Amino acid sequence: MKFRKVVVGGTFDYLHNGHLAIISKAYEVGEQVTVGICSDEMRQLLQKDSAGVQPLAIRLWRLLNELHSRGWLGRTEITILSDPYGTAVSDRNIDAIVVSPETRKRAEEINRIRISKGLNPLEIVEVPFVLAEDGKPISSLRIRYGEIDPHGKRLNHSTI
Amino acid sequence: MKFRKVVVGGTFDYLHNGHLAIISKAYEVGEQVTVGICSDEMRQLLQKDSAGVQPLAIRLWRLLNELHSRGWLGRTEITILSDPYGTAVSDRNIDAIVVSPETRKRAEEINRIRISKGLNPLEIVEVPFVLAEDGKPISSLRIRYGEIDPHGKRLNHSTI
Repeated sequence: MKFRKVVVGGTFDYLHNGHLAIISKAYEVGEQVTVGICSDEMRQLLQKDSAGVQPLAIRLWRLLNELHSRGWLGRTEITILSDPYGTAVSDRNIDAIVVSPETRKRAEEINRIRISKGLNPLEIVEVPFVLAEDGKPISSLRIRYGEIDPHGKRLNHSTI
Repeated sequence: MKFRKVVVGGTFDYLHNGHLAIISKAYEVGEQVTVGICSDEMRQLLQKDSAGVQPLAIRLWRLLNELHSRGWLGRTEITILSDPYGTAVSDRNIDAIVVSPETRKRAEEINRIRISKGLNPLEIVEVPFVLAEDGKPISSLRIRYGEIDPHGKRLNHSTI
């Protein structure tokens, strides 16, 4: 473990292997992990296609069950995000942020805000996309559309 | 079901039969239930004896598992309380609040605030204390002290 406190954030809709890669990396490099999860209001603002995104209660339940089954609950701080930054722009104890290629820009923005406030910038740890069976990244949207399952397995509805 | 939207709030530390009585009543009388759960910062402010109160991640996990096992997750809105009022003093869609004898005063305070803002006061549904085997109310503090378990069963450490 390199860091005392690490942060990750997301909507965590249909918790999938891509999410799990980011989360696992956070607990691998950090002692304590702050997990920010989008509120129900925020998922509607942020996502172009938010129809069908699961309610917070369900997304949280899946996330916490996963953390519990891996023995990580005791190292976890949960925050509900009502904006894209959460405590990442105010908590001086955070050392690093774990991102995907898709969310790296947000981490750079967070660092600009931290620096403007006199806080240390976060070390950015980037985890590559996890690919589905078809070679394209796993995403919640593709799961919601029924193309793949949360492990990236192709669902062949069209072969009927 | 009498109400469209009902609210309950608490720390939900060592989720016990007293909590479950309040929560069950909320889903019995309400179609949608907003469950407010104290943040880690707030439990320290509110409780005289907050040492040993479980972290939010663990309290939330137990709560959501219970709601899932009863089939109630889909009717749930989760909010994290950073003050004792939460959305109960601002959400005009809430019709009622479920309380214990201990938290009734807070509900009356919430109603005073709602009225001062021009919102409808909430109907207050009071659930009696759930008693432990020894006839005294079940409480998280007594569980934490090892006197009883979450179902109110006496733990006789002193009989050794």
